Amino acid sequence: MVQPFSQSRVKPEQNLKSLSSFNEAVRLLRESNSIVITTHINPDGDGIGSELALSRALRYADRMEDSKAGLHKPKTISIINVNPTPRNYQFLDVDNEIRTFDETRDAPTILQADLVVVLDTNHPMRLRTMEPYVLRSNAQKLCIDHHLDTSNFADVYLIDEEASSTGEIVMKVVEELTSHQIDAQMATCLYAAIMTDTGSFRYPRTDAELHRTIADLLELGADPTYIYDQIYDQWSPNRLRLLGNALSNIRVLYDGKLAIMTVTQEMLSATATTDAETDNFSTYPMSIAGVLLGVLLVELPDGVKMSFRSKGD
Amino acid sequence: MVQPFSQSRVKPEQNLKSLSSFNEAVRLLRESNSIVITTHINPDGDGIGSELALSRALRYADRMEDSKAGLHKPKTISIINVNPTPRNYQFLDVDNEIRTFDETRDAPTILQADLVVVLDTNHPMRLRTMEPYVLRSNAQKLCIDHHLDTSNFADVYLIDEEASSTGEIVMKVVEELTSHQIDAQMATCLYAAIMTDTGSFRYPRTDAELHRTIADLLELGADPTYIYDQIYDQWSPNRLRLLGNALSNIRVLYDGKLAIMTVTQEMLSATATTDAETDNFSTYPMSIAGVLLGVLLVELPDGVKMSFRSKGD
Ligand SMILES: [Mn+2]
Ligand SMILES: [Mn+2]
Ligand SMILES: [Mn+2]
Ligand SMILES: [Mn+2]
Repeated sequence: MVQPFSQSRVKPEQNLKSLSSFNEAVRLLRESNSIVITTHINPDGDGIGSELALSRALRYADRMEDSKAGLHKPKTISIINVNPTPRNYQFLDVDNEIRTFDETRDAPTILQADLVVVLDTNHPMRLRTMEPYVLRSNAQKLCIDHHLDTSNFADVYLIDEEASSTGEIVMKVVEELTSHQIDAQMATCLYAAIMTDTGSFRYPRTDAELHRTIADLLELGADPTYIYDQIYDQWSPNRLRLLGNALSNIRVLYDGKLAIMTVTQEMLSATATTDAETDNFSTYPMSIAGVLLGVLLVELPDGVKMSFRSKGD
Repeated sequence: MVQPFSQSRVKPEQNLKSLSSFNEAVRLLRESNSIVITTHINPDGDGIGSELALSRALRYADRMEDSKAGLHKPKTISIINVNPTPRNYQFLDVDNEIRTFDETRDAPTILQADLVVVLDTNHPMRLRTMEPYVLRSNAQKLCIDHHLDTSNFADVYLIDEEASSTGEIVMKVVEELTSHQIDAQMATCLYAAIMTDTGSFRYPRTDAELHRTIADLLELGADPTYIYDQIYDQWSPNRLRLLGNALSNIRVLYDGKLAIMTVTQEMLSATATTDAETDNFSTYPMSIAGVLLGVLLVELPDGVKMSFRSKGD
């Protein structure tokens, strides 16, 4: 088995631990017959790309097993998320695999699974209505993630807090499961996961190793122009007008350190848009020179949704 | 000497030609004593980053020569551009090297130079008021560029139409000049050149080789978070309001295939901004789903400035 985490990233005493959880994760994925894969509420490119790459790799590994031994029982793999896939990530789901959680239909699947894989979060409460079923299930639980403050709910954790994205960790799992036979579709999903979670390779955990991984994904068939266009350049004219209204009204406070952008119900109805279309608007307040805290306020019918971004100390 | 262009990029018959112009370019840079470096009107990250990386590499090479032979005469290197450096690229010019062309002061420098290096354009008319002096100068002319349709004005051309950016080509020159001793400041300038000209690694000529080059630049000390922040996240609140006004008024025509964004003099005065601050606005019309041609119209006191972007066939 290859060394899954680079020496430079992992302190010596962590190295063996990471390796053993990597081996343990791969073993669970190989040996389980019915597998449920999920990610956090309001799933993003990292969660969705990681789910689809992992599922495809498991099916690939299964076909390889099948061709070796006639008696091999194929795996059942289900991707179940608490929210529907946002429109701009639907192009990744070429086999229409992802299901939106329906309690009646899907609770039994979760309860009877052998393995539940939770991706891109380590807090089961971020699974919302799925949480009680995941916790109550007799399935083994595997958590693959890159966030801090792991909560104690899974049997096996594959956590790399230095990783830029869950996709970066899942790529190593997918390489192992497929014996390095990553296909163009897996590469596309992994590229989408990493690109979106690094803000196109600019957030702090972007390093040389990550760019070499991306180079590999391009050689395997990921198309950066197409993927970016599908995810980010599919705005409706009305959504762009909504952004225009919100930018026109941006307020800067506290010596220019705080910027607040507000989307009101009135702006939404004037542009025939919904609050879901304010996704990513929160990067704009932070783009002003000197701003340390950017706030996006979206007025909902029954309250206000706030998003924060900060930089510096 | 290393092979400067990858086999995959260059047809066999071009290979020797590329190699010979690479060697010729390096020889000119090494042997000339007074060198003028320039780039096109309205200089961008690729032009400015390439100029500064090349100048620094030449000074480094000069110091190495100097320490070998006591009699070595140091080079005079001038970077002269027809327009001032835009504010968001000034952080790259740590030694305050770039001069804005002043006919009285700078024409003699150009006329008396041994070598004029034209970067990121191969049409001398894009040097505007500097053009007659560059063409009339007895200096050898070296053109390093990645655009099509080279015009016939230089003595040596180092052109790679497959390169994502001039920075990608200049990096190979800089490696050669410094015997692979690229420092963090050169790496920063080269990263800025490549990142800006590829739209953060997403335009069509982004390939695996480019990501491996970027990995090297990060290891040499380029900081992707800092560089992006300096170049793109230093908006004034008023500039963001101007963008807001322009987006609010975007028009979509011809079955959604054409999008037009207009910036009027009235919008500029209402937000206390200038037309120079509409730089990059032209990406927004193209971000609408289905749009094949995006147009930005900026009303000037004495006319209209048009920018186009297109995708597909
Ligand atoms: Mn996430
Ligand atoms: Mn993530
Ligand atoms: Mn240019
Ligand atoms: Mn260029």
